[in-house]
Amino acid sequence: MITILSDFGYEDTYVAVMKGVVASIAAQAPTCDLTHTVAPQSILAARFHLMVAYPYFPAGTVHLAVVDPGVGSDRRAIALQCQNGFLVGPDNGLFSGVLQKETVIAAIALTNPDYWRVPKPSRTFHGRDIFAPAAAHLARGVSIFELGDRIDPTTLVTPALLPLTYFADGCKGSVQHIDTFGNLITNIPEQVVQGKAWRARVQPFTDPPILGVQTYSDVADQALSALVGSHGWLEIACNRGSAAERLSVDVGAEVEVSTFAESR
Amino acid sequence: MITILSDFGYEDTYVAVMKGVVASIAAQAPTCDLTHTVAPQSILAARFHLMVAYPYFPAGTVHLAVVDPGVGSDRRAIALQCQNGFLVGPDNGLFSGVLQKETVIAAIALTNPDYWRVPKPSRTFHGRDIFAPAAAHLARGVSIFELGDRIDPTTLVTPALLPLTYFADGCKGSVQHIDTFGNLITNIPEQVVQGKAWRARVQPFTDPPILGVQTYSDVADQALSALVGSHGWLEIACNRGSAAERLSVDVGAEVEVSTFAESR
Amino acid sequence: MITILSDFGYEDTYVAVMKGVVASIAAQAPTCDLTHTVAPQSILAARFHLMVAYPYFPAGTVHLAVVDPGVGSDRRAIALQCQNGFLVGPDNGLFSGVLQKETVIAAIALTNPDYWRVPKPSRTFHGRDIFAPAAAHLARGVSIFELGDRIDPTTLVTPALLPLTYFADGCKGSVQHIDTFGNLITNIPEQVVQGKAWRARVQPFTDPPILGVQTYSDVADQALSALVGSHGWLEIACNRGSAAERLSVDVGAEVEVSTFAESR
Repeated sequence: MITILSDFGYEDTYVAVMKGVVASIAAQAPTCDLTHTVAPQSILAARFHLMVAYPYFPAGTVHLAVVDPGVGSDRRAIALQCQNGFLVGPDNGLFSGVLQKETVIAAIALTNPDYWRVPKPSRTFHGRDIFAPAAAHLARGVSIFELGDRIDPTTLVTPALLPLTYFADGCKGSVQHIDTFGNLITNIPEQVVQGKAWRARVQPFTDPPILGVQTYSDVADQALSALVGSHGWLEIACNRGSAAERLSVDVGAEVEVSTFAESR
Repeated sequence: MITILSDFGYEDTYVAVMKGVVASIAAQAPTCDLTHTVAPQSILAARFHLMVAYPYFPAGTVHLAVVDPGVGSDRRAIALQCQNGFLVGPDNGLFSGVLQKETVIAAIALTNPDYWRVPKPSRTFHGRDIFAPAAAHLARGVSIFELGDRIDPTTLVTPALLPLTYFADGCKGSVQHIDTFGNLITNIPEQVVQGKAWRARVQPFTDPPILGVQTYSDVADQALSALVGSHGWLEIACNRGSAAERLSVDVGAEVEVSTFAESR
Repeated sequence: MITILSDFGYEDTYVAVMKGVVASIAAQAPTCDLTHTVAPQSILAARFHLMVAYPYFPAGTVHLAVVDPGVGSDRRAIALQCQNGFLVGPDNGLFSGVLQKETVIAAIALTNPDYWRVPKPSRTFHGRDIFAPAAAHLARGVSIFELGDRIDPTTLVTPALLPLTYFADGCKGSVQHIDTFGNLITNIPEQVVQGKAWRARVQPFTDPPILGVQTYSDVADQALSALVGSHGWLEIACNRGSAAERLSVDVGAEVEVSTFAESR
């Protein structure tokens, strides 16, 4: 199986063209869209999506990710073999989220033109001419070492991440993603509140604190809640409504979480 | 084959994650998106989409539907085996449209943790941890009775539907869906006008009646028409335009249909 | 493999219903969405998408295209067998872009009701009742001649195209598509500038000329550039921005390209 992530949207045929290239090389490999509505050239958002979806795919899945503002420049085109899957795309930090929990077994720059779609790839669409062919060849069992030169995994690009600092009784983190429902997904891991009562405050901190609960419907309709999201991070939600709209916040907003004694 | 319907949108990876879970259990089962842009938590819209798409899929297809405002509450998670397919999702009325024409052979609450993804499912994403695994197990041939306890099909939740009343020479119904083209799809079945001349009026009823015709292009560009839609319900359309915009109406608007003698 | 192109959007189940029909006839045929967000009834846009995606699919692929304002009128429903694939849809000019480079081996009107979904197709949804079944039968190996009567390929409908005129040192063409990124894709083929220095001006021509470069990142952030796009046409882009927004232009805008001596 090959998953595909991009900022190509659903209005054009860029994604379909990559699937056509995949089918031409690995006819039997099914593809699965992660999402294609990443904001154009937004590497951090793409990194988030890949990180949260990766663990749910079968071992050996090839993840093709093309959010590539540096296409045609000297940024590296890479493939990584990890314990539970392969990653293929530009070396711009897209994979850094996955790699927080995954071990790299092999890292390669896609320098072997025998595995490109054409000897002279487009300068603006490596997704079609370099990345999709590499993903398809991996899916049909070609060794990653065939695809190009080994590179040192410690040299992979890592992006600047949103702030997260720990206190004795909680931490201050950031909204790292706002989902379709308007849920604010923070970068604060669930371990911070495990087994404890807790509350959260969202910048600009004018609201009373939001109490940590178990699920959306634990509070009244349109009421705010804080909970452990399905991704494993703390999340601010609004029952049958949008927390993002209610609080008028965007990605990057600060979130303070504090735990407290259950008794009161 | 497994179809998937949700209100998860195309911006996030929630749908992809469910497909990853399906692929981990039933690698050979192809999936087909019904749609994922159901308005958040809109059970009636999801019910409509499922009802109109269901009859066109091969017998044995598993339909996975996750529009689930009550996730994590005590609403039941269910699977139904029908004559022509399986239905998997929350017990909140999603399936009531399909069941107007389909016979339930077996109804089950998804209470057997052996068929959940993990022993302790997320409180907010049963699509991933309970429903997708159940659908995948059904697709690979597991008996529905393995998945949990039998329930009484007469106890399934049924939602309140939009009004529809019959007269001697027609009926008064409602717009139950507005499609991408702005066509107003009513809840008035085609049988009401079969073999007869007819006309329709749409609330607030200020327009002259709209004449029943055969197809969109039977009237001038931008003209309104009334016709038997491809779903089997009467429909108000605008040739190469949007009837919804022309008439400024929304789901729930009243529609009056009357048949008349062909001679005049 | 069957690709599907339509103006049905992702909000409704029209596309899913066609896939259900395909699966009922050719269970093993995988489908691939080209795009479904073509502006309603926009034949030229659909023609563009099909033309640019077609070359990247394996030989024998069946391309099902349903942008069909004339559905239910006397426009012909057709299937074409070409050297590298099949085309199925209404005879309204959708395929004229592909056919600029492809040879038609056989052309058929889909008149044989044995290969329709039902003996009496819907007057408004031939995608479901005529085109999807035809595509599925072709995918499972039915001879195109079974599907209906031969027609003369020279009688296929051809749409009026956007202007393109050649000069001694360049040409004047048109923006034929604006993609997700806001890139202006012209109808000027790359051959016009091959091996030459060049610049472009976009209507209303108030800007200084835009210099031809190799890739997006060859210019500063938010700067305009002109380049050979991945489709093989000249393209106006804005590095990490939208050229369409910067220049406030739409499909149909004039673009002048001139080549010049490299020395200056």
